[in-house]
Amino acid sequence: MAELAQLIDSEVFLAYATYTTIVLLKMMLMSVTTAFFRITRKAFSNPEDTVTFGKGENAKKYLRTDPDVERVRRGHLNDLENIVPFIVIGLLYALSGPALSTALLHFRIFVGARIFHTIAYLTPLPQPSRGLSWAAGYAVTISMAYRVLTTGLYL
Amino acid sequence: MAELAQLIDSEVFLAYATYTTIVLLKMMLMSVTTAFFRITRKAFSNPEDTVTFGKGENAKKYLRTDPDVERVRRGHLNDLENIVPFIVIGLLYALSGPALSTALLHFRIFVGARIFHTIAYLTPLPQPSRGLSWAAGYAVTISMAYRVLTTGLYL
Amino acid sequence: MAELAQLIDSEVFLAYATYTTIVLLKMMLMSVTTAFFRITRKAFSNPEDTVTFGKGENAKKYLRTDPDVERVRRGHLNDLENIVPFIVIGLLYALSGPALSTALLHFRIFVGARIFHTIAYLTPLPQPSRGLSWAAGYAVTISMAYRVLTTGLYL
Repeated sequence: MAELAQLIDSEVFLAYATYTTIVLLKMMLMSVTTAFFRITRKAFSNPEDTVTFGKGENAKKYLRTDPDVERVRRGHLNDLENIVPFIVIGLLYALSGPALSTALLHFRIFVGARIFHTIAYLTPLPQPSRGLSWAAGYAVTISMAYRVLTTGLYL
Repeated sequence: MAELAQLIDSEVFLAYATYTTIVLLKMMLMSVTTAFFRITRKAFSNPEDTVTFGKGENAKKYLRTDPDVERVRRGHLNDLENIVPFIVIGLLYALSGPALSTALLHFRIFVGARIFHTIAYLTPLPQPSRGLSWAAGYAVTISMAYRVLTTGLYL
Repeated sequence: MAELAQLIDSEVFLAYATYTTIVLLKMMLMSVTTAFFRITRKAFSNPEDTVTFGKGENAKKYLRTDPDVERVRRGHLNDLENIVPFIVIGLLYALSGPALSTALLHFRIFVGARIFHTIAYLTPLPQPSRGLSWAAGYAVTISMAYRVLTTGLYL
């Protein structure tokens, strides 16, 4: 991990910034999707959210779970669980001076896999579509972690 | 995204570090709040957590969900979903060389919006208080992402 | 927070990169553990995940929650809630120029505490094992946040 100061100006870092921003914007879309399904399915978690649709006893029936809402929420949590390690390990990886083409390969596979994961989850596509797209993103992160640990291990 | 090495020493980066730390400390308070409500409401998720309050069959009645505990947990998860993108995109934004006043505006609105979001969630205040504070933080993150992608897009 | 450009090359930063990667790999193991328990306990959240074990009405009985699966998922979410603040505040802390021995102490206690937390959660060990390991990690993050805010506060 030598010469980090120069590397942070590199094309690898710009590519990291671009793909990270894209995958986070994709994750942020899950919030809007959850809100969309909550409103169209009329399924809320908080009493104060139901007042547009009813009051008093009438409002209580909207305090319920809906399969579509729960599906989006599971996809969102799965994003958090997988995108957080990618972003942090990806930053350390970008600072470890990888070849640009190798770095781009890692970033593109991860972002592509997570976009496909969301499509597979929300459609839903039959398994193992979702499982394989999850595994592809997971493998990219492990591969970057391996480089980080072999380049600059300090225990 | 030129001259990152100098920018990382800048006032923008110090401001980023300060507001990020504050909003994360706020998020960490949610853990303590959850524990507080679990103990005062006697509502636990794990059998081993209930032994202080009872044993055997008597302990099982504390393995339950409580509306206040669940409310704090939803606020905590909403924090994670929104603060993670802010922090990562905010770091890239801080490295992209924005004007200090513009950067401060972004950071202050986001942190203020998230503090208000927590107050609106836990009180709870009538909607659209919580919805608007969520939207304000979301808009700040989108605005920073726009600058990151227009400053240094590399696909 | 002066001279960040040099500090990013330091042993403190290498130590940060190493411990961060280790604790994230530990967190990623939770995904695999969840999948393992879902398959061995036959407890799934999505209809499309149950087709290997049954079809039609027969498949529906596998759409259920299982105590072991839920336990791993709670541990995973607790990881996210605690590891995200550690990583972000830890990065700012590493850039604030701490003594190497102090930094190593922080990183080692945190990573050790989170590994023990997972063991205490999944075994499960009697309380307060899990509570104390959670508190140790929490205290490390607060200690680092204190240094970040006292070194370079900019409001």
